[in-house]
Amino acid sequence: MRPLRIGVAQINPVVGDFRFNRDRIIEYIHQGLTHEIDLLAFPEMCLCGYPPKDLLLKKSFLDENMKSLEAILPETKNITVVVGLPTRRNEIYNSAALLHDGLLVGMQDKEYLPNYGVFDENRYFQSGSKANMFHVGTWRLGLSICEDIWHPEGMIRLMCLAGAEVIINISASPFHAGKPHRRADMLSTRALDNRTIIVYANQVGGQDDLIFDGNSLIIDQDGKILAEADLFSEQLIFCDVDLDGVVRERLQEPLNRQETLRRESELLEVQTINLEPLQRKKKSKPVLNTSRHFELEQQDPHSQVQKSLAEIYRALTLGVHDYVKKNGFRKVVLGLSGGMDSALTLVIAVDALGAENVVGVSMPGPFSSRGSITDAQALSRNMGTTLLRYPITKHFNHMEKTLRLIWPGKEWDTTEENLQSRFRGMTLMALSNKFGYLVLTTGNKSELAVGYATLYGDMAGGLAVLADVPKTLVYKLAQFRNQTGPKPVIPRTIINKPPSAELKANQKDTDSLPEYALLDQIIVAYVEEDWNVQEIVNYYNLEPGLVERIIHLINVNEFKRCQAPLGLRITPRAFGSGRRIPITQHYRELFEP
Amino acid sequence: MRPLRIGVAQINPVVGDFRFNRDRIIEYIHQGLTHEIDLLAFPEMCLCGYPPKDLLLKKSFLDENMKSLEAILPETKNITVVVGLPTRRNEIYNSAALLHDGLLVGMQDKEYLPNYGVFDENRYFQSGSKANMFHVGTWRLGLSICEDIWHPEGMIRLMCLAGAEVIINISASPFHAGKPHRRADMLSTRALDNRTIIVYANQVGGQDDLIFDGNSLIIDQDGKILAEADLFSEQLIFCDVDLDGVVRERLQEPLNRQETLRRESELLEVQTINLEPLQRKKKSKPVLNTSRHFELEQQDPHSQVQKSLAEIYRALTLGVHDYVKKNGFRKVVLGLSGGMDSALTLVIAVDALGAENVVGVSMPGPFSSRGSITDAQALSRNMGTTLLRYPITKHFNHMEKTLRLIWPGKEWDTTEENLQSRFRGMTLMALSNKFGYLVLTTGNKSELAVGYATLYGDMAGGLAVLADVPKTLVYKLAQFRNQTGPKPVIPRTIINKPPSAELKANQKDTDSLPEYALLDQIIVAYVEEDWNVQEIVNYYNLEPGLVERIIHLINVNEFKRCQAPLGLRITPRAFGSGRRIPITQHYRELFEP
Repeated sequence: MRPLRIGVAQINPVVGDFRFNRDRIIEYIHQGLTHEIDLLAFPEMCLCGYPPKDLLLKKSFLDENMKSLEAILPETKNITVVVGLPTRRNEIYNSAALLHDGLLVGMQDKEYLPNYGVFDENRYFQSGSKANMFHVGTWRLGLSICEDIWHPEGMIRLMCLAGAEVIINISASPFHAGKPHRRADMLSTRALDNRTIIVYANQVGGQDDLIFDGNSLIIDQDGKILAEADLFSEQLIFCDVDLDGVVRERLQEPLNRQETLRRESELLEVQTINLEPLQRKKKSKPVLNTSRHFELEQQDPHSQVQKSLAEIYRALTLGVHDYVKKNGFRKVVLGLSGGMDSALTLVIAVDALGAENVVGVSMPGPFSSRGSITDAQALSRNMGTTLLRYPITKHFNHMEKTLRLIWPGKEWDTTEENLQSRFRGMTLMALSNKFGYLVLTTGNKSELAVGYATLYGDMAGGLAVLADVPKTLVYKLAQFRNQTGPKPVIPRTIINKPPSAELKANQKDTDSLPEYALLDQIIVAYVEEDWNVQEIVNYYNLEPGLVERIIHLINVNEFKRCQAPLGLRITPRAFGSGRRIPITQHYRELFEP
Repeated sequence: MRPLRIGVAQINPVVGDFRFNRDRIIEYIHQGLTHEIDLLAFPEMCLCGYPPKDLLLKKSFLDENMKSLEAILPETKNITVVVGLPTRRNEIYNSAALLHDGLLVGMQDKEYLPNYGVFDENRYFQSGSKANMFHVGTWRLGLSICEDIWHPEGMIRLMCLAGAEVIINISASPFHAGKPHRRADMLSTRALDNRTIIVYANQVGGQDDLIFDGNSLIIDQDGKILAEADLFSEQLIFCDVDLDGVVRERLQEPLNRQETLRRESELLEVQTINLEPLQRKKKSKPVLNTSRHFELEQQDPHSQVQKSLAEIYRALTLGVHDYVKKNGFRKVVLGLSGGMDSALTLVIAVDALGAENVVGVSMPGPFSSRGSITDAQALSRNMGTTLLRYPITKHFNHMEKTLRLIWPGKEWDTTEENLQSRFRGMTLMALSNKFGYLVLTTGNKSELAVGYATLYGDMAGGLAVLADVPKTLVYKLAQFRNQTGPKPVIPRTIINKPPSAELKANQKDTDSLPEYALLDQIIVAYVEEDWNVQEIVNYYNLEPGLVERIIHLINVNEFKRCQAPLGLRITPRAFGSGRRIPITQHYRELFEP
């Protein structure tokens, strides 16, 4: 049998931009034809972009998907293409369409609908209940969608038991730190378990808070990675696969026959659709993009950490780039306090958008240190960015004085601190309004967790770049960037100074909060891992009162987070749509010895 | 047979306040015993309050529910009680527990899990698949939960076919305008269809954006309402029901026998649990709280409208009251512009919290009319509220001048308008910080829809009272309040002046927007009814370009709404958690003739 050339077009669609997505798909189909690809897979819902959320409740939006599919159809002459789209029959399904030689030959509906974390697919879709098998000449193909491949049982297993040699999985699987590696391992295991070739086509790109990392894969029946797409960029990958090899291995070591019989009596029904194989002249030399075996991958701990930091850094850069560009902005503006968070945000923004598109603003107030200005200057010089200067002291003093007439004799408190922060927010928003800049906020996950931030002040802006990055990780990313860039860009004085909001005299973050190393342990355990007070106290050997206090702070600051700008998600549990806590709630988590 | 005395304790729980909710439940059980009630039903998830959202993902939170249940158990001596709670076995269920004479005798799990609109129950719960039937002596009882009763088929039907004479439905069904009436009609129909007594126990109270209206009902097998609880307040209702009547009617007119046979072969299994009837001395005279037949209810159109306005007004009042109190605030503060929206918000706040707990602030700016001050004064006098005065003109002028140094020669635009609004937001937040007041925002749904509002300006605050009230309804509610209160409180000058933000010279809302009567038609059709451009243009005979422009405005302002404070929900589709649109999306809805 001649080898089958399989490809994945790992594209970056825009939600609701049907024309753009369609043109992108057609362009990659043409590239596929140039490379003599037989079978080309695109990501889940690539016609409309993922996740479209409640746009799926609009009939016209669903109709647009079908129109797009029809427009693509004539371009699929002499190639087999898999694209994803929502389809409407009596109910709505999340479907993969198989286009073969200019015809729509079949659909496969998603079986497992994720409805946890950031996913709400039960809100829109019915679960598919019929497995289709596509016979192309002598070989057999099964389609599946994202979550379907994360389950060892279900339709994919059924298709393989029924003889499919190739399983396509079209996905829109968002990134979090460590996920690409674990996903590749899972896919290799799945291929090996089922002695099948797996073609994994994942979306890439930023979409609001979510960052899709791509990393599409073609894996053989031994779990060996034949071709692997980059993380965080659009790419076409392809390679030749040996279908006879699959058949040979299954003859030698059959999939469980007992299971075959049991499965056949189940409700899921295998539909078989026969297709004429494409007529092709003899193929040019076989191609393998990359070859990596998951079991062999052994790295030393240091390089593992570096790899993880690199992934997070690139994810944030892509997230900023796509949010800015897809929302029609060209430039961003942010406040530069001379602190660590705004420094890292600036560097990420420059890496995402270019120095000419990033404007920093130094807004010294009555308690700003000299370093707050000089460090911002040094950083801006290193990065080649414009630095504006707009002191807020006079404005603040004037308003503080007139407000004091309303409350004579009252003590200075967070009111006056917030007021300074709000003057800065107001200044950035004025620049945004006047010049059309997007304001980036610079707060980190630790601050957002405990409410160490000012609503309408430092929380004012369109995108919170570090909202899912705990403070300790902010430092690691800064060091990573300094070490791996052409030269260090973040001044050591910024990295070494003790964190301070500089909103009153001699203020340090540690006046109100424990050391960040400690705080972040509690935040990660409580927010990301759902540990309770007992578990945190016992595991880290901490003082129960401290843990209770931090958890209480996390809980009572939901009202701030509910008005926070979108934050880029890089952990399995970011604040935002993946974590839904009522504002009004009195649940108190206390230590019970 | 002696009559059965059935009651509903329509309580207002606090999410996560296990002690408060438990004490409240025990207090009503004691009242129930005093009134010789045999069977007393509480709302869905009353032990923890509804909706607890992701608190349900905490094991300790689930455990607290079981502890609460155990604490209530001893109080149920000599009475039968139904309470709602989440229960954890292998999976989590939304359950009703039957407590009988001091023992936990059974559970019933919710079958239909709502996962649309503001509901995400598939995120947490598995669907119950077993119908339980409780035999108490000679009579039979079935339990169900909220959504279960909205479906004519399913377990409730099964229970009735299997002989249940009483169906308890414990609910947490949030209000929207017109819902109480439609719900009562549905429940009457359901009772009549199944020839069963229905006991409907609904939660009451505000919980973040949701307002639960209560309006619990006891309905006989002819669909006649025997007892009806008030809307929007805690209440105990009870009445005596005639179980022999149910049996008699079913003998004369049996439920469909063919369906009985078909149903029995289905997967749902009816479990039967036998209980000893409670020992009671002869009962005091029978009680009927109210008696209203749904078919007889005929009202003239004017009084229907008045009733609807009264319900909305009371819903908003309860929503404000509960958000303020449950979040530990005592007083609220709001900006009084002399306009309609802030006037209505003030009046609602006073009706909810008392005049002594509401502070208005007049913040005249460079473009404020004289009326903006005098009308705010007249209103505050009428309502007996404190009015603070804090002019923003000097602060604005100073900042406008120094900002202009950054952009010499640039024209005045929305930057300067927003700046005025943000000085006001900053002032209110300073008062909030200094005195612990909650800031109420005053924007209406029409403004929020098209983005005619300033982020961190008039959108700054903790609760948006009118966020789901279109401008035209704001006027109707104001007139309703003026007509039905002891005396008119909102000055005619406020009602009669053309709406204006007063952020530049001679500004009127109609400079940027169509008349509100027209705008609201489009907003309601598009946002609440999901009509497309064609349907709106054709139905209202509007200019396609205008409709396209308004819909485009609605779509591009998602970024503002994503940072808006919680708004009280009074329609089926409010902005907020019930409407989930991506910020990054290019879908454009155009007229296609």
